[in-house]
Amino acid sequence: MKPADVADLGLADAGRLKIEWADRQMPVLAGIRERFAAERPLEGWRISACLPVTAETANLMRTLAAGGADAVLCSSNPLSTQDDVAASLVTHFDIPTYAIKGEDRDSYYRHIGAALDHRPQVTMEDGADLVNELHTSRTELLDEVVGGTEETTTGVIRLRAMANAGKLSYPIVAVNEALTKHLFDNRYGTGQSAIDGILRATNILFAGKTVVVGGYGWVGRGIASRAHGMGANVVVVEVDPVRGLEAAMDGYRVMNAADSARVGDVFISGTGNLNVWGAPHFPEMLDGAILANAGHFNDEFELPALEEQAASSREVRPFTREYLMHDGRRIYVLADGRLVNLGAAEGHPAMVMDMSFADQALGLEWLRPRAGELEPKVYGIPEEIDREVARLKLASMGVQMDDMTPEQKAYSESWESGT
Amino acid sequence: MKPADVADLGLADAGRLKIEWADRQMPVLAGIRERFAAERPLEGWRISACLPVTAETANLMRTLAAGGADAVLCSSNPLSTQDDVAASLVTHFDIPTYAIKGEDRDSYYRHIGAALDHRPQVTMEDGADLVNELHTSRTELLDEVVGGTEETTTGVIRLRAMANAGKLSYPIVAVNEALTKHLFDNRYGTGQSAIDGILRATNILFAGKTVVVGGYGWVGRGIASRAHGMGANVVVVEVDPVRGLEAAMDGYRVMNAADSARVGDVFISGTGNLNVWGAPHFPEMLDGAILANAGHFNDEFELPALEEQAASSREVRPFTREYLMHDGRRIYVLADGRLVNLGAAEGHPAMVMDMSFADQALGLEWLRPRAGELEPKVYGIPEEIDREVARLKLASMGVQMDDMTPEQKAYSESWESGT
Amino acid sequence: MKPADVADLGLADAGRLKIEWADRQMPVLAGIRERFAAERPLEGWRISACLPVTAETANLMRTLAAGGADAVLCSSNPLSTQDDVAASLVTHFDIPTYAIKGEDRDSYYRHIGAALDHRPQVTMEDGADLVNELHTSRTELLDEVVGGTEETTTGVIRLRAMANAGKLSYPIVAVNEALTKHLFDNRYGTGQSAIDGILRATNILFAGKTVVVGGYGWVGRGIASRAHGMGANVVVVEVDPVRGLEAAMDGYRVMNAADSARVGDVFISGTGNLNVWGAPHFPEMLDGAILANAGHFNDEFELPALEEQAASSREVRPFTREYLMHDGRRIYVLADGRLVNLGAAEGHPAMVMDMSFADQALGLEWLRPRAGELEPKVYGIPEEIDREVARLKLASMGVQMDDMTPEQKAYSESWESGT
Amino acid sequence: MKPADVADLGLADAGRLKIEWADRQMPVLAGIRERFAAERPLEGWRISACLPVTAETANLMRTLAAGGADAVLCSSNPLSTQDDVAASLVTHFDIPTYAIKGEDRDSYYRHIGAALDHRPQVTMEDGADLVNELHTSRTELLDEVVGGTEETTTGVIRLRAMANAGKLSYPIVAVNEALTKHLFDNRYGTGQSAIDGILRATNILFAGKTVVVGGYGWVGRGIASRAHGMGANVVVVEVDPVRGLEAAMDGYRVMNAADSARVGDVFISGTGNLNVWGAPHFPEMLDGAILANAGHFNDEFELPALEEQAASSREVRPFTREYLMHDGRRIYVLADGRLVNLGAAEGHPAMVMDMSFADQALGLEWLRPRAGELEPKVYGIPEEIDREVARLKLASMGVQMDDMTPEQKAYSESWESGT
Repeated sequence: MKPADVADLGLADAGRLKIEWADRQMPVLAGIRERFAAERPLEGWRISACLPVTAETANLMRTLAAGGADAVLCSSNPLSTQDDVAASLVTHFDIPTYAIKGEDRDSYYRHIGAALDHRPQVTMEDGADLVNELHTSRTELLDEVVGGTEETTTGVIRLRAMANAGKLSYPIVAVNEALTKHLFDNRYGTGQSAIDGILRATNILFAGKTVVVGGYGWVGRGIASRAHGMGANVVVVEVDPVRGLEAAMDGYRVMNAADSARVGDVFISGTGNLNVWGAPHFPEMLDGAILANAGHFNDEFELPALEEQAASSREVRPFTREYLMHDGRRIYVLADGRLVNLGAAEGHPAMVMDMSFADQALGLEWLRPRAGELEPKVYGIPEEIDREVARLKLASMGVQMDDMTPEQKAYSESWESGT
Repeated sequence: MKPADVADLGLADAGRLKIEWADRQMPVLAGIRERFAAERPLEGWRISACLPVTAETANLMRTLAAGGADAVLCSSNPLSTQDDVAASLVTHFDIPTYAIKGEDRDSYYRHIGAALDHRPQVTMEDGADLVNELHTSRTELLDEVVGGTEETTTGVIRLRAMANAGKLSYPIVAVNEALTKHLFDNRYGTGQSAIDGILRATNILFAGKTVVVGGYGWVGRGIASRAHGMGANVVVVEVDPVRGLEAAMDGYRVMNAADSARVGDVFISGTGNLNVWGAPHFPEMLDGAILANAGHFNDEFELPALEEQAASSREVRPFTREYLMHDGRRIYVLADGRLVNLGAAEGHPAMVMDMSFADQALGLEWLRPRAGELEPKVYGIPEEIDREVARLKLASMGVQMDDMTPEQKAYSESWESGT
Repeated sequence: MKPADVADLGLADAGRLKIEWADRQMPVLAGIRERFAAERPLEGWRISACLPVTAETANLMRTLAAGGADAVLCSSNPLSTQDDVAASLVTHFDIPTYAIKGEDRDSYYRHIGAALDHRPQVTMEDGADLVNELHTSRTELLDEVVGGTEETTTGVIRLRAMANAGKLSYPIVAVNEALTKHLFDNRYGTGQSAIDGILRATNILFAGKTVVVGGYGWVGRGIASRAHGMGANVVVVEVDPVRGLEAAMDGYRVMNAADSARVGDVFISGTGNLNVWGAPHFPEMLDGAILANAGHFNDEFELPALEEQAASSREVRPFTREYLMHDGRRIYVLADGRLVNLGAAEGHPAMVMDMSFADQALGLEWLRPRAGELEPKVYGIPEEIDREVARLKLASMGVQMDDMTPEQKAYSESWESGT
Repeated sequence: MKPADVADLGLADAGRLKIEWADRQMPVLAGIRERFAAERPLEGWRISACLPVTAETANLMRTLAAGGADAVLCSSNPLSTQDDVAASLVTHFDIPTYAIKGEDRDSYYRHIGAALDHRPQVTMEDGADLVNELHTSRTELLDEVVGGTEETTTGVIRLRAMANAGKLSYPIVAVNEALTKHLFDNRYGTGQSAIDGILRATNILFAGKTVVVGGYGWVGRGIASRAHGMGANVVVVEVDPVRGLEAAMDGYRVMNAADSARVGDVFISGTGNLNVWGAPHFPEMLDGAILANAGHFNDEFELPALEEQAASSREVRPFTREYLMHDGRRIYVLADGRLVNLGAAEGHPAMVMDMSFADQALGLEWLRPRAGELEPKVYGIPEEIDREVARLKLASMGVQMDDMTPEQKAYSESWESGT
């Protein structure tokens, strides 16, 4: 067994069950793994991956290994590490893994260090902490690194800033920008899993409830569509008038935050901004209002103001905190205002991660022959990868589609339709 | 404290939290309780209730007590007893309760016996076991009994059979026949909670899945609507052509069981019949097919045939059993084929039980002044109770509706509209 | 050619085109016609039909003739007569027809008289005017009449009143009570055609509009569903709390008439009652509000009050009348407050009439061998006819359904499901 | 009266009625007109507009005049000219207009010439014929022209080609690229009006039909959503896998053209490409299949092949042509394969044109102070105009929205959300 640092190798069998279950929901990645095993496109590449250590990630690591890569894994977020999966990765799949759920900052950075000790030629990340460490504390390793990938918006922003400042040493593929990632995980993944989280936390009936959705970007659209699909009457709060108009044309009521505060039974926020509802709104809310966050950070609701306004609070169900207001109303906050789909449910279904991680694997394959030639900046995912992932996904669903005929291709290139 | 038999009185505080949370989702019953406390319409009535001992039932018992009744409770189903709720009923609400989760048959009937020792004037039931016991083993008590209520179809069938055979000694109100019960709990309650159970058991993504719904009665309609609302493509299997035609007109594909077996990703059955999919269908199903039952009994899928056809089986997630077929396909059965919303989720939301139990409470109130005069048979719920429960529910949702104007009332009585 | 009275036989070819087009949308009736032609179940029966003389009715008359009947037709409503269809019935199909669009009362009753001169053994009606005439002015013919059918609620009410008063001389089958009639034509037929009528009258965009639906019976449900499907935000006004609660659970807002008056862009009423919106509401309505009636009679909106309150009115598009109020607001009334789907569009699609008229044809076939034995009262449509019509409709749509297995049939009879 | 050339000035009153009705559906443009009347931002500008001469365009012309412009109008498409509107523009609104419905090529270009005789400083177009004429035959006028706008994709393509070739003499604003144009008119406008056109042409019932939609761009999404909303079962045919995957995730079946040909009752194409269904597919289609085009050109269906394969054809209803195939099947083509929403219904509702034409008016206002400084190329619509049009539209619908708080604005600029 290669060196590793995980919580308890005894959990490996339970972890393998999780990895296998996820694998069955990830047919695109499984297909790529099969092809990689035959073609070995990553042969001998040393990869240091810093990702959430989950069953889905395990299947990505298996795919890299099948492609010939020499890959190690550390955690990009200690809270999301699944210790049984980490144990199985080490025990059954021979992937050196450095991750312990709930580890402290020291352990976290020691594990990133261990991953870097692998002397990566490629980095694969979720948030850019490892890239940052590499460019600051471990610069001696930079010479050998020829490329990387990044999964998140946050990471891409950091990397673009580094590139603009001339500080990025090698090219990075922004997997986040794939249509097959952000069109799908936000809309369908978060859309479903936010509802799921609320159901698990509260067991309320959605039918007949007024659900107020904060934001009508991809996340908000997905949530609005699913809340509506469960029988709720949906209200949308937006600040962008074009999006607000789309929400209205989609048949929803559109309101400002203050008006919405007075009518909502459930508030779900996915704006990416802060204080969508806050100090001025809590006094207006109905008795029994439920607040659930589906945005990345836990400041979409101004919770410190709620704490301050409330007479007391207590946990009434797992992930459901009741704030008793001085006038006797009760307001419920789910999962402490953190992402409700991760806090109270299981996050994105594996089927959604299937596409994101297929983008990762194919991004690496695309990168390999180009690694020496690309500039040290952030690259969007190539359109052909996006199309390939979508094509594989459809095939896994049993869907048959046509390609354009040559005649149609010629037509489409000579004219772009007016409608 | 009155005599009682529960698992552990130390669980009482946890139980109270559950009862209170349910109470907040049950505003109709809470309103009735408040009125009952003022009017005391059940003053002094001895009631023996035999119901699932859950947080929702606890709020019904509190309502009877508030109305002046002298009520005791035993369990109608040992598997659904919530021990903490039972403890709280005894400790905080002073309701003698005889129920232990998982108790055996002897204990079950001993507890029914204890409830009968209360010498009921009224019975309140879910399934008619207590009524049966009363009419067979405890006939000496029958003289004092003046009426009862029954919650379930199964119970009503048994009671009607008794009445037809001249064996029923007193009148019983069939709460199950209230529109505010069966129109709502089947369609909206089971519709949502079946989806919820599948999500908790599997964490699959519904979007893009082909979901086959067995039956297009109220349960099937609810499930089809919610599965569609989560982004699934819904197929309906029916044997009644009028219902099948409704499903087709509602935009769903309608198929026979054999054809559906070849296209479904998820099968959800709510027909009330048996072997909707069975021995001939399992060999045709897609690899990865998921089977979930939303009907009362666990024979909607012919599971013995599946056991026989499978090479092996194992539990891959809680409530998810994988059957490995000889040809390598895998079929997943949720919650052992039992009701998936109870097995893998929490059953009906309290908000749905609010109406059923309001029907119970108002049914008793209606019964009291009539108890001496009614024949010993099964009575439907009076229409005015249905309307009153719906009215209270709408009021609790903040909905304002009109009554007919006198002019409209006159018009509606002189003419019935052609549309 | 048999005697007849139609507007212009020169229109026959245009009429045939309409009849053929309708026939292609009426595969159930066409199938019955084919079978009738082989089996001749109505051989020699003299039938006097009094129905709207439309292309759909023409196909019913063809079916009776194919079954061997000796049938004549007069109009049950002069406004809905299609003169070209009447001409074609006489010219191409050899059906004596007495109907002229726009004929006056005298002509109308003369035509009923001509139909009665046929000495019917069976009557087939839409509204019971012919039956009434028969029982009052032409009683000498009653001896030969052995049965009849009635299409409408209004007619059924009149006939039930006659039966209760001991005045009905022969048995009548109430086609209106078939599930395959009223479940479908109200919900799917009126639902679509009301929207269609509003589009043709106004060409407004439904997306983003607030559409208020009066009534949540089958008509209201259909309209709400279709308005929602076109992107509107739907509000329901009801007086029945159970229906109101269903509307709320279906995700719509539910209001009283006064509140709805202030928020609606479009009001569509299908309650079967009068003055759903009237004198108190018009002053509250938004500038530009549109009023469309989908109920049988033109008093769902209190139009005399609107006339009185308005400063002036004018027709601004065909079927769209603008009322200018003294405060400058404008309110638009479509099709003079008459049924908008008939006034501004083409009424029910033929596909819906296919089922109603199949019920008619099969109702007659059922009646023939029983005619001598039945009491002179109103009979519901037999359940097996309903099932047969639905079955034929599904077959015409290419849908394959199962029958219950013997095992399932036994199970369903021994137990009725609890869910 | 200024010089003009229209069909019949006697139609002016009917035209005014149309213009006023459209105006009531165009509150954004009406608001801009009111402001323009006060601020006169186009004072004295000579504008030559070449647009479809419809009621909606008339309201745009009124707005330019209110803003102080000296504008004339000729037709960009003789078939869409409304002669009564043209007459009213001349008679009541004092706008010189050169347009006659059905005019020939000579008349068409003579009218463009007359519009150019106005010596425009600005051009406003739909298709770029006038710009082309100006740059080829009337180059002596180019010196005075400082800018223009273009409404269509086709025009923008021509203008970009001119700009790239160094042949464009002045800057042009591409109104087509406004979100408030293409997000809305394709999705909501064409979505509704394509359904409307099919209803008017055929009066079929959508509920229960299988509707196949060609293309899942904005047009296809709109149509799919509305067909689904009318109760159809929707199948999508796409060649782009990402769009195909979106369609599948939205709950629709996705197929290739050949498979779809065998299941569709109605085919609606909006791909912008040709021969989506053609020679190989017609022999596979169901008897009674209906073909409707919602794309710009009439080659989405390969109609010449259908003509060739058919035994005969005839018009069975206005806009509905029946092709009788040699095997007895019938296939119906609506509106001769031209845009069904224009051919059989009334095209986009005025409410949709409200936004496009508001973009036009605000585009001119934006252009005026910049006209001297801009390069001679094609400019996208400025984002602030898009936001302003959406904001005004929402205001006209009575929707209240918030702006970001300063705190939110700061937050959004420092971080972009990860979800």
